[in-house]
Amino acid sequence: MIVGVVGGGQLARMLALAGYPLGLKFAFLDPSPDACAGHLGGHITAEYHDHAALHRLADLSHVVTFEFENVPAETMTVLAERVPAYPPAAALAVAQDRLREKSLFRELGIPTPEYRAVESVEALTAAVDSLGLPAILKTRTLGYDGKGQVVLRDRAKLAAAWSRMGGVPCLLEKMVSFERELSIIAARGRNGDTAFYPLVENVHRNGILHISRCRAGHPLQTQAEDYAERLLQSCDYVGVLTLELFQVGERMLANEIAPRVHNSGHWTIEGAVTSQFENHLRAVMGYPLGDTAANGQAAMVNLIGEIPEISELLAVPGAHVHVYGKEPRPGRKVGHVTLCMADDTRLEAALGQVLALIDRR
Amino acid sequence: MIVGVVGGGQLARMLALAGYPLGLKFAFLDPSPDACAGHLGGHITAEYHDHAALHRLADLSHVVTFEFENVPAETMTVLAERVPAYPPAAALAVAQDRLREKSLFRELGIPTPEYRAVESVEALTAAVDSLGLPAILKTRTLGYDGKGQVVLRDRAKLAAAWSRMGGVPCLLEKMVSFERELSIIAARGRNGDTAFYPLVENVHRNGILHISRCRAGHPLQTQAEDYAERLLQSCDYVGVLTLELFQVGERMLANEIAPRVHNSGHWTIEGAVTSQFENHLRAVMGYPLGDTAANGQAAMVNLIGEIPEISELLAVPGAHVHVYGKEPRPGRKVGHVTLCMADDTRLEAALGQVLALIDRR
Repeated sequence: MIVGVVGGGQLARMLALAGYPLGLKFAFLDPSPDACAGHLGGHITAEYHDHAALHRLADLSHVVTFEFENVPAETMTVLAERVPAYPPAAALAVAQDRLREKSLFRELGIPTPEYRAVESVEALTAAVDSLGLPAILKTRTLGYDGKGQVVLRDRAKLAAAWSRMGGVPCLLEKMVSFERELSIIAARGRNGDTAFYPLVENVHRNGILHISRCRAGHPLQTQAEDYAERLLQSCDYVGVLTLELFQVGERMLANEIAPRVHNSGHWTIEGAVTSQFENHLRAVMGYPLGDTAANGQAAMVNLIGEIPEISELLAVPGAHVHVYGKEPRPGRKVGHVTLCMADDTRLEAALGQVLALIDRR
Repeated sequence: MIVGVVGGGQLARMLALAGYPLGLKFAFLDPSPDACAGHLGGHITAEYHDHAALHRLADLSHVVTFEFENVPAETMTVLAERVPAYPPAAALAVAQDRLREKSLFRELGIPTPEYRAVESVEALTAAVDSLGLPAILKTRTLGYDGKGQVVLRDRAKLAAAWSRMGGVPCLLEKMVSFERELSIIAARGRNGDTAFYPLVENVHRNGILHISRCRAGHPLQTQAEDYAERLLQSCDYVGVLTLELFQVGERMLANEIAPRVHNSGHWTIEGAVTSQFENHLRAVMGYPLGDTAANGQAAMVNLIGEIPEISELLAVPGAHVHVYGKEPRPGRKVGHVTLCMADDTRLEAALGQVLALIDRR
């Protein structure tokens, strides 16, 4: 059985690596001839709006999914007319628009930072009057890894910031002084069963995820699962969904969702009984979900821009190296290292070794 | 960097799945157009003695290895002239000939069952006089999974047995009444470092491996490691090597070696810190070996001939399903299931569930 994947980057690649043991094969649709998943299955090199190519993907696939949320909604509609396609287009539409996303959180009773929709410099000024500064101006669509957003600290610079965003519809969000960023990876099967991984604590650097630490037994786990469950049920979701949260004291504010496997869940490949990639495939194939429990302590470090000497990384105790086969380029995610240990002290020591190898370069 | 693999079966497939995260790519040489590793890299469809094809494989590979021990020795010689090739041809030659294998065990002080070389029916009769019955007559070459061997219990049937073997050079082995069959998976890096997995206890059915159970902490671990170490050092081995043993009381008798990753090591994919497949690649690439410790309790069951309903297998707690993508056929290894659990009681319960699904068919 062939799983069609829209997008052929590292998430598609790791889906395929998790799927072959289940007896699945893969076909990727990606405009780049260098797409790093391309070695692991059929590769249709075509744009996402190329209907003939989408028909080809649909016709050879048993089920279709996507690896990133900026797939045009139309792409999934075209595919869904011919083949089962998960996650649902409705979830994709929500994740592509920060205003719809925040509105959904509110509808479902999930707290968020305060925000205002902003479609003009006048509306921006009014929103700043209402929310105060500092605040974050974000484009409603097409933002990821810190792109499409700017922090506003100075009332005198509002017009400049607005024009830098290109005049597109935006959202102004009150800047939250949070203790930490958390994420929860959740999965829902075709039969409605759900499963949740332990909360993950995330540290960013230059707007890109740097380190994720699995925090099994976190006191906010039940609350986070409840929020994720509401989101999953609200759109009859099938597959893995990630909810990013800010922890403020004993509360959590929802930041955003990703309707897919997520960088903050890469530790699950070795650190959990069933990886997020396998569970996404189990969900879209209609198989039962696998156990999401953590095996001991786990953390993940992203390799950004370049790969340190691989022999040195492999010599770190408990290190699992994942190289994506992408051309190194500044700011590009080219790999990650997962560390798994029985106890936290040894985990942090090993993490320190990996960080030293990364920062030496 | 491309790893060339002679053979494109499930072992090659699992090597590739372990190698992509290390940034490796793969090319397989296999005469079958359906070789199940073929989806995971380049596939040169050619016979093992096709020099032009071997040159092509060598020229596109950074290093070459093999996935089964019946590769003609000449194949590896042709490859080794052009590209680093591991494990060494000497180990392959030993593993292909039961007499050389047993002689090496003796040379290295590793106990074996008593045996005699047999090249005629007269020599067979003399050997039976010397060793007694029951005994096992085995062809010197081309035996695996119980093929090429017959148990002798009746002096009157020696001539018939001899002719059934086709008159090829054989070995007569005294039948050992052993308590259990064990195996140890060992690895040796290019720099001479060695690593050993915990002893595995193996149960066969119809001459084919049925169940392997990891036995971390086995009292004979040190002795088994010592035997494996002697074998690794004797031929400047690089890669993973498996030594199969019979346990007789407090002693072990060497049965045979496999100069490759082994079915009794499949549990290491989820059950050990580093899998046998990753460690084989680390070794042949000249990378440091990874930790061979077990994560809790683990067992593996082979799926022979057909795959039970995959949804039911995936519903068993702690079950990791591996389907090889091979056409089902009686007696053919088409997949395996690994079970990992914190304690042995739950492990055996889960194992029982998987066995029930297999035996129901």
